[in-house]
Amino acid sequence: MYTKKRKILAVTGARSEYDIISPILEHLQKNSEIELGIIVTGSHLSEAFGNSVTEIEKDGYNIISRIYNLINSNKKIGRILSLGNQIAPLAQVFEQWKPDIVMVAGDREEAISVSMTAAYMDIPVAHIAGGDIAKDGNIDNSVRYATSKFAHIHFTILEQHKENLIRLGEDEWRIHNLGNPALDKFINTKKISIEELENRTGYNLNDGQFGMLIYHPIITQIDSEGDNIKSIIQSLRKTNLIYLINSPNSDAGYANIVKYYEENLINDKQFTLFKNLDREIYVNLLRYSKILIGNSSSGLIEAPSLSLPVVNIGPRQRSRFNAGNVIFVDYNETEINNAIELSQSALFKEKLNKMENPYGNGESALNIAKVLFTLNIDKELIHKNITY
Amino acid sequence: MYTKKRKILAVTGARSEYDIISPILEHLQKNSEIELGIIVTGSHLSEAFGNSVTEIEKDGYNIISRIYNLINSNKKIGRILSLGNQIAPLAQVFEQWKPDIVMVAGDREEAISVSMTAAYMDIPVAHIAGGDIAKDGNIDNSVRYATSKFAHIHFTILEQHKENLIRLGEDEWRIHNLGNPALDKFINTKKISIEELENRTGYNLNDGQFGMLIYHPIITQIDSEGDNIKSIIQSLRKTNLIYLINSPNSDAGYANIVKYYEENLINDKQFTLFKNLDREIYVNLLRYSKILIGNSSSGLIEAPSLSLPVVNIGPRQRSRFNAGNVIFVDYNETEINNAIELSQSALFKEKLNKMENPYGNGESALNIAKVLFTLNIDKELIHKNITY
Amino acid sequence: MYTKKRKILAVTGARSEYDIISPILEHLQKNSEIELGIIVTGSHLSEAFGNSVTEIEKDGYNIISRIYNLINSNKKIGRILSLGNQIAPLAQVFEQWKPDIVMVAGDREEAISVSMTAAYMDIPVAHIAGGDIAKDGNIDNSVRYATSKFAHIHFTILEQHKENLIRLGEDEWRIHNLGNPALDKFINTKKISIEELENRTGYNLNDGQFGMLIYHPIITQIDSEGDNIKSIIQSLRKTNLIYLINSPNSDAGYANIVKYYEENLINDKQFTLFKNLDREIYVNLLRYSKILIGNSSSGLIEAPSLSLPVVNIGPRQRSRFNAGNVIFVDYNETEINNAIELSQSALFKEKLNKMENPYGNGESALNIAKVLFTLNIDKELIHKNITY
Amino acid sequence: MYTKKRKILAVTGARSEYDIISPILEHLQKNSEIELGIIVTGSHLSEAFGNSVTEIEKDGYNIISRIYNLINSNKKIGRILSLGNQIAPLAQVFEQWKPDIVMVAGDREEAISVSMTAAYMDIPVAHIAGGDIAKDGNIDNSVRYATSKFAHIHFTILEQHKENLIRLGEDEWRIHNLGNPALDKFINTKKISIEELENRTGYNLNDGQFGMLIYHPIITQIDSEGDNIKSIIQSLRKTNLIYLINSPNSDAGYANIVKYYEENLINDKQFTLFKNLDREIYVNLLRYSKILIGNSSSGLIEAPSLSLPVVNIGPRQRSRFNAGNVIFVDYNETEINNAIELSQSALFKEKLNKMENPYGNGESALNIAKVLFTLNIDKELIHKNITY
Repeated sequence: MYTKKRKILAVTGARSEYDIISPILEHLQKNSEIELGIIVTGSHLSEAFGNSVTEIEKDGYNIISRIYNLINSNKKIGRILSLGNQIAPLAQVFEQWKPDIVMVAGDREEAISVSMTAAYMDIPVAHIAGGDIAKDGNIDNSVRYATSKFAHIHFTILEQHKENLIRLGEDEWRIHNLGNPALDKFINTKKISIEELENRTGYNLNDGQFGMLIYHPIITQIDSEGDNIKSIIQSLRKTNLIYLINSPNSDAGYANIVKYYEENLINDKQFTLFKNLDREIYVNLLRYSKILIGNSSSGLIEAPSLSLPVVNIGPRQRSRFNAGNVIFVDYNETEINNAIELSQSALFKEKLNKMENPYGNGESALNIAKVLFTLNIDKELIHKNITY
Repeated sequence: MYTKKRKILAVTGARSEYDIISPILEHLQKNSEIELGIIVTGSHLSEAFGNSVTEIEKDGYNIISRIYNLINSNKKIGRILSLGNQIAPLAQVFEQWKPDIVMVAGDREEAISVSMTAAYMDIPVAHIAGGDIAKDGNIDNSVRYATSKFAHIHFTILEQHKENLIRLGEDEWRIHNLGNPALDKFINTKKISIEELENRTGYNLNDGQFGMLIYHPIITQIDSEGDNIKSIIQSLRKTNLIYLINSPNSDAGYANIVKYYEENLINDKQFTLFKNLDREIYVNLLRYSKILIGNSSSGLIEAPSLSLPVVNIGPRQRSRFNAGNVIFVDYNETEINNAIELSQSALFKEKLNKMENPYGNGESALNIAKVLFTLNIDKELIHKNITY
Repeated sequence: MYTKKRKILAVTGARSEYDIISPILEHLQKNSEIELGIIVTGSHLSEAFGNSVTEIEKDGYNIISRIYNLINSNKKIGRILSLGNQIAPLAQVFEQWKPDIVMVAGDREEAISVSMTAAYMDIPVAHIAGGDIAKDGNIDNSVRYATSKFAHIHFTILEQHKENLIRLGEDEWRIHNLGNPALDKFINTKKISIEELENRTGYNLNDGQFGMLIYHPIITQIDSEGDNIKSIIQSLRKTNLIYLINSPNSDAGYANIVKYYEENLINDKQFTLFKNLDREIYVNLLRYSKILIGNSSSGLIEAPSLSLPVVNIGPRQRSRFNAGNVIFVDYNETEINNAIELSQSALFKEKLNKMENPYGNGESALNIAKVLFTLNIDKELIHKNITY
Repeated sequence: MYTKKRKILAVTGARSEYDIISPILEHLQKNSEIELGIIVTGSHLSEAFGNSVTEIEKDGYNIISRIYNLINSNKKIGRILSLGNQIAPLAQVFEQWKPDIVMVAGDREEAISVSMTAAYMDIPVAHIAGGDIAKDGNIDNSVRYATSKFAHIHFTILEQHKENLIRLGEDEWRIHNLGNPALDKFINTKKISIEELENRTGYNLNDGQFGMLIYHPIITQIDSEGDNIKSIIQSLRKTNLIYLINSPNSDAGYANIVKYYEENLINDKQFTLFKNLDREIYVNLLRYSKILIGNSSSGLIEAPSLSLPVVNIGPRQRSRFNAGNVIFVDYNETEINNAIELSQSALFKEKLNKMENPYGNGESALNIAKVLFTLNIDKELIHKNITY
């Protein structure tokens, strides 16, 4: 008997969020009873952010639409205009492709534009990584909450996120706490020797005596980001390590950070700037790195799986669940240097070696894909807050 | 000493929602230390929905932008495209006019587009009528919740709405439960004699032996709305009253209802169709009406102030707080006729005559205007979910 | 040897323009070496204009996108906003589907939005029906010219249109004067007996003693259209014929005309209003009609093939090439009645019977399809005004 | 007697085009019977292109709207999406501000979006610099033509441009050939001594032994622009001059050029990169420069007023009217070096010293402002191609 395939449409708008959904996509792709489509948008399509759509193309997915939406402006208005640019094209692709489920992750423009558009069109939305509450005053918080209120099925990363969603009024049956799929990919990334890593990157890895710095701008403190990054760099100059520095993401304020890097670190042997490294290389760099510094979510979520110590500077990530490997400090050179020293102590390392990662067991993607495949799609799913 | 005026920008997109905010606008307008601007959008600007912008012009407000956004389609995609059309113009007007506060009411496209756009731009949003939970599965529910998650200050209508917002994670200090401002206007509407009313409308009011029918479409049951309205009309034919029927609002499905009216009620003496009546006339019609039938929010919110019995048919309004004047029934002719009979009984009328209206005391608008004027606008207001 | 199919993408936005391109589509569809895609937009997708997309679906074409763009407003701003709504979705569909040629016809919003978007993306544009010059001051004139300046290949309808395009600076090799494809379909429409026609429409055709009225609004005289249509109807009341009246198209001003019809002609036996008739029925009605009145292009272009006399009222169509069957008059009752009388005279009818239709020989569509298939697509085609 | 001021609304989207209109704005601003508004859009609002809106703010004009429209993409689709983003905000500002005349210059996205939007809304459009025909196959050609077909009044720069517009079917009375207003400003720029110039820029001007390079990308040869700029730089290395290099404009392909500069010229003493210099400094640099190289329009239009020799490389500007100071060459090192040598010969310089600039006499802006002020605004102006 012929049965119509289940049509699942994933939308991805940024490299970091693609890392979360791509392990799920792999499982969906293998399932011959699923028709999988991808819409690529956001910074994936901008040369200025590394044009990461090419990576998705390499992964071989069926890209059904490319939505060029990013407005070329560093001002606050830029993000909302970019969001607005997604709505009509999303709606018109949904109308045409007729997905059974739309999937989106995270708390950026794509999350809200996709979930809102699909919900208005009575298409079920599966949202990944809702329920988190970052106490940083960033608009992403409101976006994440609002996305959850439009979404019909939730895949949370931590038990506490699930509880938050229930408090927000979401039905418990809509919430599946299955961990972070990005971790699956991370844990299973092929190991590369440090020599090969040096060969492939061309970076001097200093016999492993290196750290990594990933610092993203915070929209509520755009004007001070130049000073903030300066404090950080000056602290790092006092340590014995060399550092690999990743470019910041595209939030308002990134230009101030990039400017500081370009004006101060070019041709400085202690610091090497990079952007959009091959994932395999990036993960292996983290594996050999002595420390991760900055305010990347990697420090909270992925570092525990590597027993990697983390110094997280400034308010970003503060309210995230800390497995125990992260030391939080302010933009203060003494604090930063003290934290780095502590993080490299024998005691701290011993503690990390015993730790398990509460963010996931490496099977999140498989389990999410199963739910997406077996989920009952009916009126009850679509019409939220209804009493029959 | 010169002090900059506080700039308040209200956005209005529909007749019914303008009724809620206009009493507040009146108070703001009178305050010489406030600069008030209005953005008009949505169905106000459509001839098909009565071009109600002319009423706002007559009210003499400073309209700083007209955003023509409504897509001419009866399909679900229409509403989300219309919403998307608002974002860029809103953002660009906000950027230019630089409001200190943006105000929006309700749970339709304007509510979410305005609150989201302003929140992304770090402009405080005052939202009126959040926290309500209609258990009807309509997208408006998700819109209302999501709007609250973007808004910075909430004016709720009922105490239970305030409690809902607190459960949703909103800070208590952001919530002001001040009742429904539409009621202020309603209560204070000038009385007109029934004779004058007949003269001004040209309607036969049958010595006061008339009822009113206001039935709006429900997006989740578009296809059956033709049958639903048929049941209702057939029930009404069995009563001794004549009826004035208001056009449905612009939700998907309205075309089915209008079609039924046009094909069946033209030249029928028991029924008179009207749209967008002058407010004064509309309120006075309600005053003399023996009953209000359909699924209008007026039945729940305003009718208690008139001791007007209401028969609410179908799921719409079901979960709203019932002051005691409303009888809820299904699309069933017997049920409808029984409810009408009950509503006209002496006992029921006696009960209504003793009732107070829990939706407001007639001073909501004044109190809301005061908060908007005195509200402290600072980082704490703007950055939600922040821990300092 | 495998050869990639030529991908041709047609965009259609209105019933009248679909009549022009659909005969070409039929030929393209039959060619197994062509992959044909259709984008449907504009009034095709509006219930208010008859939702004619269903007809395209019935024709069985591969609709690759539906672009809902029409803004619900009768004001001038409505058309340009509607046009603006098409650009991003068009661009994003072009980017994804990668047409070798895009085809569009006429002089309305779609013509300019499609040709401009494709030209910016270096996709060759084939434009049908350029080079016409209507001396009516309508924006369509500017649109038609501008479209020609973006288009890479032109299919004109009359020899004088080709000459106009050459004067406009278009290379002669880009211009193919092949007549109006709508005529092919028109001429070959199956004949229906007048009895069957009555049965299928339910209209009284009065033993063939009927005329047809098709009057479209003129954007430059919106305010007087109510009076204009009144003059016309009053003239028709003085004749012995009954009349079938088609709804006006969606240009600004149509509401005034529709309003007049609805207020004055409902239940009037001399007049029957209709909209979006089945094409077969429409053509056969014209065949039996004694006269066509109004300002439809049918009077100029198609009527000659039926030897049908036409009275064209007002400035619209004035500058169109008149095969000899059209009498042009002003909004003046005497003029209109005199023209009707003349048109029904034996002499006039004799002249019509001898006439050939200069607008096409019935093979236009086939010939256009051939050019689209064999056309050399190279840099010379794409880069206009280049000197190598 | 009170007379309403004439409201003129200028739209500007790029630095180079602002140079053309700003002299006109100065004259309009001084006229107390004119109300002048400015809409700023395009690259003016992008940090990546120097955020030149700040310059307009400094000039003190009444900016009534900022339209952030630029899509962050180097691909062809970027420009048309950016154009599409302008339409709704333009229309909505026009609707609100109600200009009597809209003014726009040039042949980029703003030209067509503004003229099309205004024309659809029956607002007269004054277009500056139409009628030029660059035989380079660039989309700008089609844009410039199409803009002229929407515009109601034309200010041309050369007599031959006026003739072209007449050939295009524009009424002669609509065309005013008054020269290039950018030249007015250019000619009257205050002189700065070479020493002060060095102080203010911090550049080494090498005792005046320097040239300037301004090379913009050509959309039809994006992929070869890296090689093209390489040939040019290698030629320049063989000369005795040092060079100041201006950043390319934002057309597709600019990233390839910038990449070459950044990878090859950083820390090279013969070359100094700059972007968006203060106009006064830029003009004075040209005054002392021995040669202008590249493909900037300055070489054709402004250089004649300075008797400055120009070597124009590649197809851009080829078809422009050459006053005699420009030597056109291909991307060929020998050709380039020969041309530089010729340009520095005594004979060539002598010829230049005798030359008058055919592009303008320095009073263009004043004369254009006069026409804009006195122009009769009536139906004849607005309804093009009408026969009364």
